[in-house]
Amino acid sequence: MNCDANSEIRNLLGQKINVLDDGFVRLVDVMGDDSSIVQAARVSYGEGTKKVSEDKALIRYLLRHHHTTPFEMCEIKLHVRVPMDCWRQWIRHRTANVNEYSTRYSIAIDAAQATEPEKWRLQAQDNRQGSEGYLPTESGIRLSQRESELHNSCREVYKDRIEAGVAREQARKDLPLSTYTEAYWKIDLHNLLHFLALRMDSHAQYEIRQYANTIGNEIVSKWVPHTWAAFLDYRLNSISLSGTEIGFMVLLNSGKQDVLLESMREKGWIKKVDNSWKATREAEEFAAKLITLGLTPPWQ
Amino acid sequence: MNCDANSEIRNLLGQKINVLDDGFVRLVDVMGDDSSIVQAARVSYGEGTKKVSEDKALIRYLLRHHHTTPFEMCEIKLHVRVPMDCWRQWIRHRTANVNEYSTRYSIAIDAAQATEPEKWRLQAQDNRQGSEGYLPTESGIRLSQRESELHNSCREVYKDRIEAGVAREQARKDLPLSTYTEAYWKIDLHNLLHFLALRMDSHAQYEIRQYANTIGNEIVSKWVPHTWAAFLDYRLNSISLSGTEIGFMVLLNSGKQDVLLESMREKGWIKKVDNSWKATREAEEFAAKLITLGLTPPWQ
Amino acid sequence: MNCDANSEIRNLLGQKINVLDDGFVRLVDVMGDDSSIVQAARVSYGEGTKKVSEDKALIRYLLRHHHTTPFEMCEIKLHVRVPMDCWRQWIRHRTANVNEYSTRYSIAIDAAQATEPEKWRLQAQDNRQGSEGYLPTESGIRLSQRESELHNSCREVYKDRIEAGVAREQARKDLPLSTYTEAYWKIDLHNLLHFLALRMDSHAQYEIRQYANTIGNEIVSKWVPHTWAAFLDYRLNSISLSGTEIGFMVLLNSGKQDVLLESMREKGWIKKVDNSWKATREAEEFAAKLITLGLTPPWQ
Amino acid sequence: MNCDANSEIRNLLGQKINVLDDGFVRLVDVMGDDSSIVQAARVSYGEGTKKVSEDKALIRYLLRHHHTTPFEMCEIKLHVRVPMDCWRQWIRHRTANVNEYSTRYSIAIDAAQATEPEKWRLQAQDNRQGSEGYLPTESGIRLSQRESELHNSCREVYKDRIEAGVAREQARKDLPLSTYTEAYWKIDLHNLLHFLALRMDSHAQYEIRQYANTIGNEIVSKWVPHTWAAFLDYRLNSISLSGTEIGFMVLLNSGKQDVLLESMREKGWIKKVDNSWKATREAEEFAAKLITLGLTPPWQ
Repeated sequence: MNCDANSEIRNLLGQKINVLDDGFVRLVDVMGDDSSIVQAARVSYGEGTKKVSEDKALIRYLLRHHHTTPFEMCEIKLHVRVPMDCWRQWIRHRTANVNEYSTRYSIAIDAAQATEPEKWRLQAQDNRQGSEGYLPTESGIRLSQRESELHNSCREVYKDRIEAGVAREQARKDLPLSTYTEAYWKIDLHNLLHFLALRMDSHAQYEIRQYANTIGNEIVSKWVPHTWAAFLDYRLNSISLSGTEIGFMVLLNSGKQDVLLESMREKGWIKKVDNSWKATREAEEFAAKLITLGLTPPWQ
Repeated sequence: MNCDANSEIRNLLGQKINVLDDGFVRLVDVMGDDSSIVQAARVSYGEGTKKVSEDKALIRYLLRHHHTTPFEMCEIKLHVRVPMDCWRQWIRHRTANVNEYSTRYSIAIDAAQATEPEKWRLQAQDNRQGSEGYLPTESGIRLSQRESELHNSCREVYKDRIEAGVAREQARKDLPLSTYTEAYWKIDLHNLLHFLALRMDSHAQYEIRQYANTIGNEIVSKWVPHTWAAFLDYRLNSISLSGTEIGFMVLLNSGKQDVLLESMREKGWIKKVDNSWKATREAEEFAAKLITLGLTPPWQ
Repeated sequence: MNCDANSEIRNLLGQKINVLDDGFVRLVDVMGDDSSIVQAARVSYGEGTKKVSEDKALIRYLLRHHHTTPFEMCEIKLHVRVPMDCWRQWIRHRTANVNEYSTRYSIAIDAAQATEPEKWRLQAQDNRQGSEGYLPTESGIRLSQRESELHNSCREVYKDRIEAGVAREQARKDLPLSTYTEAYWKIDLHNLLHFLALRMDSHAQYEIRQYANTIGNEIVSKWVPHTWAAFLDYRLNSISLSGTEIGFMVLLNSGKQDVLLESMREKGWIKKVDNSWKATREAEEFAAKLITLGLTPPWQ
Repeated sequence: MNCDANSEIRNLLGQKINVLDDGFVRLVDVMGDDSSIVQAARVSYGEGTKKVSEDKALIRYLLRHHHTTPFEMCEIKLHVRVPMDCWRQWIRHRTANVNEYSTRYSIAIDAAQATEPEKWRLQAQDNRQGSEGYLPTESGIRLSQRESELHNSCREVYKDRIEAGVAREQARKDLPLSTYTEAYWKIDLHNLLHFLALRMDSHAQYEIRQYANTIGNEIVSKWVPHTWAAFLDYRLNSISLSGTEIGFMVLLNSGKQDVLLESMREKGWIKKVDNSWKATREAEEFAAKLITLGLTPPWQ
């Protein structure tokens, strides 16, 4: 336990924050805080500025300009309990330290993520790897019932093998991906923010998004509040405009709507179908950005 | 495809080498070979030696003295098909590039690793995370039968969900860990050798050991034969003696058996029980090393 | 040498491209190309699309949405000759493989980066870590003269030590940072693009920018042309708007100039000084973005 | 500051430990200790053992069997002051977080590593990248005198450029490699031990060895005493025997000296020259191991 940490974060140490039906995130330890980022930056930049307001401005500057190394000077260690399916995504973030519960060494955790009848998500139509909306409850009831039966069967088979003397490393082979696992996960703040930017995104899968939201909103926001505010502003709530989109915006902002539409058409972003514009996926993404900026895409 | 590669390795390109009941390893591409290691080392060491015999000696020298960076100058890309349970171990090696088949985006591969009746492994008694020997076939027949039924149930539930319109990212949640996945896996030779040293080891789980043996014996041995020979000699077939063990060996080699036993007893490696020596796990590991070296542990 | 590579890249293999007064970049080997990125992405996404136009669109999609792993499936190996001062920045990119010329093992390279009289850069006034403009030539002549004398002194001292029998590892201790070193540098395409985005940026130091420009414009553009075009569009020529800036843009686009100015004033981005607006650094960066988008910052 | 740390390590926090003539290592922060390694291991292995003696045995077991991930759960942050020449070696260890003093942003540190007249090291004859013994003092006096003059010249040229208005990023280009730099350096314990194993080795260059010895003996030994003891035993004081050497040892231990010599001769390890055995470098390394083990190499 770090005794320089602020009281909010000290109060969190050791507390389990529930996620999903049987998962959790538990803060084990932290190294550093907002002031450590400033301290590290000043090894490079000199020692002039000292006030808290200047610390905040420096942190904003660092994050805005992708000066990422000072954020690596903070480290956090979490104890998490996660369905294996979700952990398969989590573990793809390679710049972290991990100790996972071993089902070679110990009996597998006797819990699998269960789905409530109204929580079965429909396949998204326009995004092959997403979901949108929910199945009708009557279907959901049936699916949840079958899910429960399958969990029971899987567990019975597992127990049967263990009792027959099968090695744990082999007995586990047919556990469902929904089985919970636990791990210690340690990561520096820069790489954690990268994880959060990807996994708090609306395109991230629901399950891992719950963990990311919990880590971000419940823990990081209290641990390094200035960094968190800058992260929300410069990463999570930001938009990026490509060189091509900048060119289109210039046309739009100079009132040359016709030239814009012709230029988009030429580049294959939109085409006329039945007297209205049909947009590519990239053009639709651009339209969404324009609307966010208070503008009206003239092809819609 | 690399056209400088030797003919043996060129013949392997694109070939699937079967592993387990439905897995494979397929060589996709290589960058560099033994001569690239030498070439990179000579950026550091100068250009004096040129003969093949000297190349071999230089590679041996580099590997023996842990001069690892020249081995990073070779890169290999494999396409693998692996049960997810095995892949969970594989992916813990972080210094590699990975593109895995996405069950968010596509229907899960319809294959799960099946176990033949005589291939159910018994839990090891002296190693909590290992296995030794096999269950009697009559038990195996029952377990394989239940395994097959469980695979069918899991697949039916999965199909049921997909047909009901459940998003693929959620439908997959109860697939068994034995379900096959596929990935492109790219890694440099130094990190590959580290992977092989750990996963060809007799303590590695059977399944991943089959993949490691295939990659090592079938591919790496042909790709970089001098490096492979040095790896076998200095890593796979080597033993390490700790400072404490060196002290014990000196006593043994100078014929002071009594002093040795007393010293081991004092350090808690052995104790007298019922007139014979009971050894700790570390002392047993030491005994095994002595036997490998043609010596007799006096406490056995 | 890779024999699938296109002819432009094959012609580059082994060629030294000059950089600075005595440095170079030389392409040693490549693994993969645009099609390998597509191939790896399709392990995840399935095999539907096949046409070249679709390949290009897929690469744009991957880069736009930060699906970075397929770009890691391409690898490049360069031989570079760089002043040590510049190499100190270069080596901070950790995700690469490196074999550097060893001045412990061999006599240091007898070349140091020299500066022409008209190439002495002035300290930037508004950017503590940059330069802008050049010193007058008469000063430059004097500085270049002293530079040359210093290089000679350093080399004489080095030679003196070597001749006296001093170990190379110690004799080198006072070589100037401008001394050239050489290295083999191997990196995957994703991490190379990250390097290029940072080092082709106008804020990167002149010297490393020349190397980055050479690698990007002369090599990567020919190696993976679709990826290069997407990189220029989505990274190098893009701009990012923070959540705060988006809020300001909405006010500007809805014609509420007064509300915008008041909001910026409240947030401390601008303040009235002598009847005109004084802007913070962040506000100036925002103004530059507005101008790029064809808009007029009302506080200027 | 971590308030769970033991009193010895808490007393070290913030203290500069001098290294070389003007360098230092200063402990900034630690996360975790021996007990955190045990805690992380038990996420995998279960919670059975609890006593301190068992903790020590578990740590020994983990280190002996290369179960490295629990050691990654400890993190240390140091502030170091190091000659740039030495830092060039240091920074090659890629798995660490770094913030270095920026000579683009600030005036370079006005200190360069100076060599006392009796500390000029002779080039090693049998190891191209090492040193052995010292130059006679009369030569040393001259070399130290010239070194001092060169340092003065370099600094004058630097100051001249700065005063003329040259950008700091360019003015620094001819600073000698002996110029001190400072950095915050943060690394996990596993990777730190790897650094120490390489840099405390007698083949490491004198300068970086002083830093490694200081970090190891003064800091790590107090921070994680059980880990440190295990590290000394299993890494620093251990020896490794290759498969070939094991074969030779078996012959030696069974008294077959003639067969051994013939076998070594056949494999090219030794050859008869003028009636005595001439050994290759590898054979000499083997001889040294035998002597360490209390045996006599029969070819010497």
